[in-house]
Amino acid sequence: MTSPSENPADLDRSDPEGEIGARAEAFRNWGRWGDDDVLGTLNFIDAAKRVDAASLVRDGRVVSLSQSFDTNGPQKGWRRRTNPVHTMTDTGVDAERGNQGFPHGIGGADDVISMPLQCSTQWDGLGHIFDHGMAWNGRRAGDVVTSEGDLVTGIEHAASVIVSRGVLLDVGRHLQPETGELEDGYAITVADLEATIAAQGPTSAVRRGDIVLVRTGQLARARRNGWGDYAGGPAPGLSLTTAAWLHRTEIAAIATDTWGFEVRPNEFDAPAFQPLHQVVIPNLGLTIGEMWDLDELAAVCAGLERYEFLLSAAPLPITGAVGSPINPVAIL
Amino acid sequence: MTSPSENPADLDRSDPEGEIGARAEAFRNWGRWGDDDVLGTLNFIDAAKRVDAASLVRDGRVVSLSQSFDTNGPQKGWRRRTNPVHTMTDTGVDAERGNQGFPHGIGGADDVISMPLQCSTQWDGLGHIFDHGMAWNGRRAGDVVTSEGDLVTGIEHAASVIVSRGVLLDVGRHLQPETGELEDGYAITVADLEATIAAQGPTSAVRRGDIVLVRTGQLARARRNGWGDYAGGPAPGLSLTTAAWLHRTEIAAIATDTWGFEVRPNEFDAPAFQPLHQVVIPNLGLTIGEMWDLDELAAVCAGLERYEFLLSAAPLPITGAVGSPINPVAIL
Amino acid sequence: MTSPSENPADLDRSDPEGEIGARAEAFRNWGRWGDDDVLGTLNFIDAAKRVDAASLVRDGRVVSLSQSFDTNGPQKGWRRRTNPVHTMTDTGVDAERGNQGFPHGIGGADDVISMPLQCSTQWDGLGHIFDHGMAWNGRRAGDVVTSEGDLVTGIEHAASVIVSRGVLLDVGRHLQPETGELEDGYAITVADLEATIAAQGPTSAVRRGDIVLVRTGQLARARRNGWGDYAGGPAPGLSLTTAAWLHRTEIAAIATDTWGFEVRPNEFDAPAFQPLHQVVIPNLGLTIGEMWDLDELAAVCAGLERYEFLLSAAPLPITGAVGSPINPVAIL
Amino acid sequence: MTSPSENPADLDRSDPEGEIGARAEAFRNWGRWGDDDVLGTLNFIDAAKRVDAASLVRDGRVVSLSQSFDTNGPQKGWRRRTNPVHTMTDTGVDAERGNQGFPHGIGGADDVISMPLQCSTQWDGLGHIFDHGMAWNGRRAGDVVTSEGDLVTGIEHAASVIVSRGVLLDVGRHLQPETGELEDGYAITVADLEATIAAQGPTSAVRRGDIVLVRTGQLARARRNGWGDYAGGPAPGLSLTTAAWLHRTEIAAIATDTWGFEVRPNEFDAPAFQPLHQVVIPNLGLTIGEMWDLDELAAVCAGLERYEFLLSAAPLPITGAVGSPINPVAIL
Repeated sequence: MTSPSENPADLDRSDPEGEIGARAEAFRNWGRWGDDDVLGTLNFIDAAKRVDAASLVRDGRVVSLSQSFDTNGPQKGWRRRTNPVHTMTDTGVDAERGNQGFPHGIGGADDVISMPLQCSTQWDGLGHIFDHGMAWNGRRAGDVVTSEGDLVTGIEHAASVIVSRGVLLDVGRHLQPETGELEDGYAITVADLEATIAAQGPTSAVRRGDIVLVRTGQLARARRNGWGDYAGGPAPGLSLTTAAWLHRTEIAAIATDTWGFEVRPNEFDAPAFQPLHQVVIPNLGLTIGEMWDLDELAAVCAGLERYEFLLSAAPLPITGAVGSPINPVAIL
Repeated sequence: MTSPSENPADLDRSDPEGEIGARAEAFRNWGRWGDDDVLGTLNFIDAAKRVDAASLVRDGRVVSLSQSFDTNGPQKGWRRRTNPVHTMTDTGVDAERGNQGFPHGIGGADDVISMPLQCSTQWDGLGHIFDHGMAWNGRRAGDVVTSEGDLVTGIEHAASVIVSRGVLLDVGRHLQPETGELEDGYAITVADLEATIAAQGPTSAVRRGDIVLVRTGQLARARRNGWGDYAGGPAPGLSLTTAAWLHRTEIAAIATDTWGFEVRPNEFDAPAFQPLHQVVIPNLGLTIGEMWDLDELAAVCAGLERYEFLLSAAPLPITGAVGSPINPVAIL
Repeated sequence: MTSPSENPADLDRSDPEGEIGARAEAFRNWGRWGDDDVLGTLNFIDAAKRVDAASLVRDGRVVSLSQSFDTNGPQKGWRRRTNPVHTMTDTGVDAERGNQGFPHGIGGADDVISMPLQCSTQWDGLGHIFDHGMAWNGRRAGDVVTSEGDLVTGIEHAASVIVSRGVLLDVGRHLQPETGELEDGYAITVADLEATIAAQGPTSAVRRGDIVLVRTGQLARARRNGWGDYAGGPAPGLSLTTAAWLHRTEIAAIATDTWGFEVRPNEFDAPAFQPLHQVVIPNLGLTIGEMWDLDELAAVCAGLERYEFLLSAAPLPITGAVGSPINPVAIL
Repeated sequence: MTSPSENPADLDRSDPEGEIGARAEAFRNWGRWGDDDVLGTLNFIDAAKRVDAASLVRDGRVVSLSQSFDTNGPQKGWRRRTNPVHTMTDTGVDAERGNQGFPHGIGGADDVISMPLQCSTQWDGLGHIFDHGMAWNGRRAGDVVTSEGDLVTGIEHAASVIVSRGVLLDVGRHLQPETGELEDGYAITVADLEATIAAQGPTSAVRRGDIVLVRTGQLARARRNGWGDYAGGPAPGLSLTTAAWLHRTEIAAIATDTWGFEVRPNEFDAPAFQPLHQVVIPNLGLTIGEMWDLDELAAVCAGLERYEFLLSAAPLPITGAVGSPINPVAIL
């Protein structure tokens, strides 16, 4: 079998199902970590990897890679995804007025939140996407995620896993040195990723078990111009043809500063929706991060001329969740 | 002025307001980091501290310190605190049945959550507790936390801060070697903390900028016996008299495996409610973690005979929140 | 075919599936109102019925039949059902303090709610229960209610329907004149219903299109003794054998003052769960009300010696909902 | 004292506070129903009124006046108001697949909702608006509505009250016979209301205790053109000068088919926000309905040449709420 092309020009734009299927078959990791596996490519992170990653902490600097969680976010209701609604059940105004009924001058504030798990910076869990009714590791989708949640690969299984070496690939800056921003609809290729690595130098070499962060610059543009269609509209992102690279590099996870990680509109003339997701989540078992804020990190890395760091990004262990809001931190 | 006693026997059990007030006055850090400060004792974490903490990663092991987030939690409605409600907006059962309307065989699952920010493992933000209508750093409570949220010291300000050296003090195991569990109502004293440090050895020495984790064993008991009144009922915890130690050690933050960090019932005959909170949050500016799961970490530390580690516990940057659900990880 | 027995003593307590199946087959209304029907027995309410019902308004008195909606309700988490969580997004305390930013002295309060649709007084929609994978009118359950909601028989279809003659059957008072309360586990029979009607007199005659309210007295007991297991535990309620009566009377809907309308534990030795629901919702197409408060109404009816009234109980038109919180009102 | 003008041309457009204050003083009903009153003008509904209203039911027809409750609503996040988020906790797809764990072939669907209480068709409670820190009946706003909710005038107090004669004033059709729609920004005057009554004929005479429904036609336009700024943008609505009419007619309540009941932009050059609310809610004690759907009712009334009916619009008794979602029904 010929390996699927890594050149977007070779894609048959009339046949998303064929192009997806070829890559799903070529890069499928089912069974690689046993029949009971619930972690997929996160298995590439081992103890030595983490010790090595910790050794990258030289400046003692922490950069949060999270967007904020509030009603000013980009969500507009697609798939019932709203921005977070945070409300107070007690406040300082109440405490100061003395209506809380507590003794000896103590007062308190308390709060609640209601939010989609993928409203802002997040990990996609392995139960988030299916391929022809099949979930990660070859399980039937309906056996994995019911109305009770993800009974098999819920995000809680990754609670003590996602700490590893992080590598920033600032593709936006490499390809568009003046603006640092890729245009919406730009499909990042394997060649682009490799050219960025080459340009940034050896600290951005990508190795097994890494968590790769690809900056497109779209978030910076949205900050400047308003959200517009950031949540689901046209965006720069990875080409379907990068599936090969995502597979052969044996990275543990990948994240971008866009809503959907892959390029939009998708690279087909026929109706298509997130074909790279369909290849990499259920077939490779790849954990994907979306809506990360990589702008401050990009500035710090450029300043230090160093693109590697310790990345700590444990999800909230929400039982049965197919995703989790997170505040990933790069520790340099 | 005499420093307030560190011996619980000296407390005037009829006068919580007096005992609180004496400690608030003695240990108040207002202005210590400037008028605009929003971090309190988290300021004790500096770059060198983090570099040092990262050097503690020797085994490449990650231990999650988070309880799960689901409806099986301990909350029973006090102050409208419920357990998290996680619901699916799309499932694998739907995907497998083919009712999602997506092209080329892709299917998806999505979910939402509704929860109090202090329902499970969490940080208390600096706007969570007030002392006589005053918030951290001497601000009026009503100027800080309104129905819009914490407009000044919201948890988002700590998004890139809480990575430091963690130290586990397994007081439960030290005082109750057979069970590893302190009784409900047991007030942990300064002497207990220091004896635990001495017994555990030099890796548990507490230093400026540390995040101290105090294990009481109550969570282990609740796991065995059922939640009962874990959320707000009798519990082992820190004595009000430890305020002095919390101040002079210059720790950055502290967390326990109980609902409320301090001993309950509180150490007074007069009506009292969380007096140590009233001293340390608004006056010291101390960040407190509650409902952490320290059991696996305790076993690991005992096995390694090492009680220090890199602790990464960034809150979700929920704008204006007075607390945040977290998944803290110890990296050893 | 022999009609299923109306005597609970005749039930084969080892065979719930058989007893349910016999009644489902005997009383099935599928197709009765056409293939597209979305209302079931609510079709029995016609214009003349409503004109007649309105003529029962003689005293101008309104009695709310709703329990309250707040955190003090009976829910304990079964099936992720919690009590409602009501929070404020603005308050009078804020307005009085002047922090809302509005001009010319106006201030405001606003609020949000998060709740299961069946947390308190409610209607069960026709999509709430299925019988062997089939929904009302013979549709496949999976074609009707997906993760998107009830795409066919959502409660919004009943938005302008449920106004009719209401009849109160105070079975609690009739069978237990001293306490007015049936014991938990008491199975109300057809004979009990008819005896109550006879005792109450002609104003409680049950006719086609009526909404029948059966008071057991359990809510009064819960009010006195605390909720206990009101939500799902033992309760008085209708026997499975009343299915025949529910069918032949051609009532439009029925409601009780209990969590689950039918007797609990259910009338079987084999594992069983809400067998009468399984017969009457998907097969008869009967709309069921639960957790209604019938105590004040019972007192009013007894005082007036009149058990009929105009009943207005329109659901909130929540698109695709399988139930709705309601405040039903009896107008006498 | 001269009564404030009923002619919008007389308003001093530079002085909203003065114009509001004059009307607040002139029309204030504080104390009219005693110091403990929690109902305001709803007190105008008496038993005779309801008996009279029930006599208007001649055709047995019910018209729902509620918009739908779903994510397709007009809310865009102002004041953290979102559209309702309805999610399923169990579905027919699950039931059909057999994963619910219930015996004897029963399956079920269940659901939850999260929504602002004023997201769709609703009543404003008396605690919704304040005038210079004062709430209905002369209470301090901070004594009435805290973070715990409305402790005094919560919507639950109206649970068994709001059933009365309804009168539709189709001002849109009267003033714009061709389109039936008033332009955004059009201020409905007392003269307009009276002209509409005169044109519609005696069945639309407005009397004490009535619930008056004013149709502007804006909802019909939003249905045709998309929501746009329906939630908070320019809209036709009542002029501030109608306060006099709202007071002297002694109506019990009023509702419109717009987001905000009164004309927007408000009738001032100086910054202004909902001045008529400020007059009528805290001062008159008037209950206001917003976002009602009056289009089908308008067609029915025009067809019957009858503009009066029994109106049943009981709020959900959400304890301490300052508003309630409702499904009001007109029974003709």
